Amino acid sequence: MIELDLFEVLAPLADMLAAVAFAVTGALVASRKGLDVLGFMWLAVLTGVGGGTVRDLVLDVPVFWVVNPIHLTACLLTAVVVYLAAPWIESRRTLVLWFDALGLAPVTIAGTAKGLDNGTGALVAIVMGVVTGSVGGIIRDLVGQERSVILRREIYVTAAALGACAYVVFDALSLPWLNPAVIGVCVTFAVRGLAIRFNWSLPGYRRPAKASSETAGGGNGQ
Amino acid sequence: MIELDLFEVLAPLADMLAAVAFAVTGALVASRKGLDVLGFMWLAVLTGVGGGTVRDLVLDVPVFWVVNPIHLTACLLTAVVVYLAAPWIESRRTLVLWFDALGLAPVTIAGTAKGLDNGTGALVAIVMGVVTGSVGGIIRDLVGQERSVILRREIYVTAAALGACAYVVFDALSLPWLNPAVIGVCVTFAVRGLAIRFNWSLPGYRRPAKASSETAGGGNGQ
Amino acid sequence: MIELDLFEVLAPLADMLAAVAFAVTGALVASRKGLDVLGFMWLAVLTGVGGGTVRDLVLDVPVFWVVNPIHLTACLLTAVVVYLAAPWIESRRTLVLWFDALGLAPVTIAGTAKGLDNGTGALVAIVMGVVTGSVGGIIRDLVGQERSVILRREIYVTAAALGACAYVVFDALSLPWLNPAVIGVCVTFAVRGLAIRFNWSLPGYRRPAKASSETAGGGNGQ
Repeated sequence: MIELDLFEVLAPLADMLAAVAFAVTGALVASRKGLDVLGFMWLAVLTGVGGGTVRDLVLDVPVFWVVNPIHLTACLLTAVVVYLAAPWIESRRTLVLWFDALGLAPVTIAGTAKGLDNGTGALVAIVMGVVTGSVGGIIRDLVGQERSVILRREIYVTAAALGACAYVVFDALSLPWLNPAVIGVCVTFAVRGLAIRFNWSLPGYRRPAKASSETAGGGNGQ
Repeated sequence: MIELDLFEVLAPLADMLAAVAFAVTGALVASRKGLDVLGFMWLAVLTGVGGGTVRDLVLDVPVFWVVNPIHLTACLLTAVVVYLAAPWIESRRTLVLWFDALGLAPVTIAGTAKGLDNGTGALVAIVMGVVTGSVGGIIRDLVGQERSVILRREIYVTAAALGACAYVVFDALSLPWLNPAVIGVCVTFAVRGLAIRFNWSLPGYRRPAKASSETAGGGNGQ
Repeated sequence: MIELDLFEVLAPLADMLAAVAFAVTGALVASRKGLDVLGFMWLAVLTGVGGGTVRDLVLDVPVFWVVNPIHLTACLLTAVVVYLAAPWIESRRTLVLWFDALGLAPVTIAGTAKGLDNGTGALVAIVMGVVTGSVGGIIRDLVGQERSVILRREIYVTAAALGACAYVVFDALSLPWLNPAVIGVCVTFAVRGLAIRFNWSLPGYRRPAKASSETAGGGNGQ
């Protein structure tokens, strides 16, 4: 089972890369809010391991950072580093975005794979991938009282969802010369990268003019 | 065990009705915020399955939508439908409220029953019912940055709590000619329905005049 | 195993004291928001048992208030008492702070001990202690839409973290004449108490002047 072997290597590395990348974005929220070093740690840890934690709870498997606290340690160290080096890091916003994309891609696919490995169907596995990739950021924005990643129209969740779909499709096809994980990671990273580079966003829902006022609702016949 | 049989039918139907009803309210928050279709999906799923997910995690039973993703699918489809038809749906706010009440009633009782079935005491079962009925809405309002359903003084949680109590009491009495689930559903729906119809609310805590300023606290004798 | 025996006594008492103390702070948020009695109950329960619930979910052990609903009952009763007596309690803010510190200390150590008892390493156990002590307050502030305890620079999480560290260190040393739990509780309470008494806070991250404007970021060479 060459794929399983690959995942045994990929999954922890991906979780680690994502934990650090996500922890950086969490710690940067702490720097914007002027928190103390414990605040940096909380936000780094919540963002870094939050998505994987929810995934593991929902799948009813042991939480990954309880089994092996290396990700937790990485998040805490990241918090300290960002606390010391935040101005340098903050002046490199674009770099942080790309680093975050580099974490998002493998962790989404590893999350999707973990779903499939635990016997979920394709849809649940895709949702697990999206959860792993984005719940940390959602918690970060809730606790840090920032505009939630869900409420922005960036192509972020979309990239994770497309990559997870690609992985599931190619995993089901099981073509001998194509590794589904590589495809999934590439799709996620490419979509997210193009979105960063060209500032893409999906069309938001636009309320028609006639219904645009709060009070217009109730009495409208159709 | 006629009741168990009934629940084997009622529970999935109730979860489904509630998932769709709650997903509609989630997707309507997405429409008010002008999100893209992925945002509609996130909010629909969080609202639709959030309460049941927390219930299942706390009860330590497999999460219902991982076992059978039909509710997840329903929430995602609901999100797409609302994305396309939001103006039509938004102009029918009262209908949405009633639809939500129609979801609240059975899902609360099914949640309470799931608690009892898993061997919890009456109080925990009632809390499980309330959690199932209201946590989705709490998460929706947190993530959607709306005024939380808890912070409004609507009779919503109260309706769920009263229905769950009625169910637990009549289940313990086990009167042969009365089905406790039917009573629980009717109580929840009736209380919530009356609250919608007559705009009922419970009395809010009112700070006495002498303590009304933030700074008045410390030095006050009794 | 004198320590285990002590914890078999200490853990439930600590959970109970903390549940009531935390529930009071939750119910006081409800009073500030003018909620109804159900709102008091929700906030009291979320704050009172939230931290321990997340700890138990992450450790994959049965949730403590499902096993024994005495803490849940205590939170609900606390909510009713605060609803009736809020002005009296609110005028004693300092007392509430000290009462909260009295809950924080043992519950943090009991949480840390529960981690170690379930075979986690030292770091995860410390995080479990901090989670038990502070997640309830985080949820309270999120749902109550107050400034999160994480975003304030009070020494609160720090006190919990230091006490948990002290417990883990002295537990590992296992000196015969020193009870690690007593030391951990004393450290947490002393640090938190000193912070309340002298209004201590850790230094917050201060953005250097040159990077202080949002727009300055992108183009900054270093």
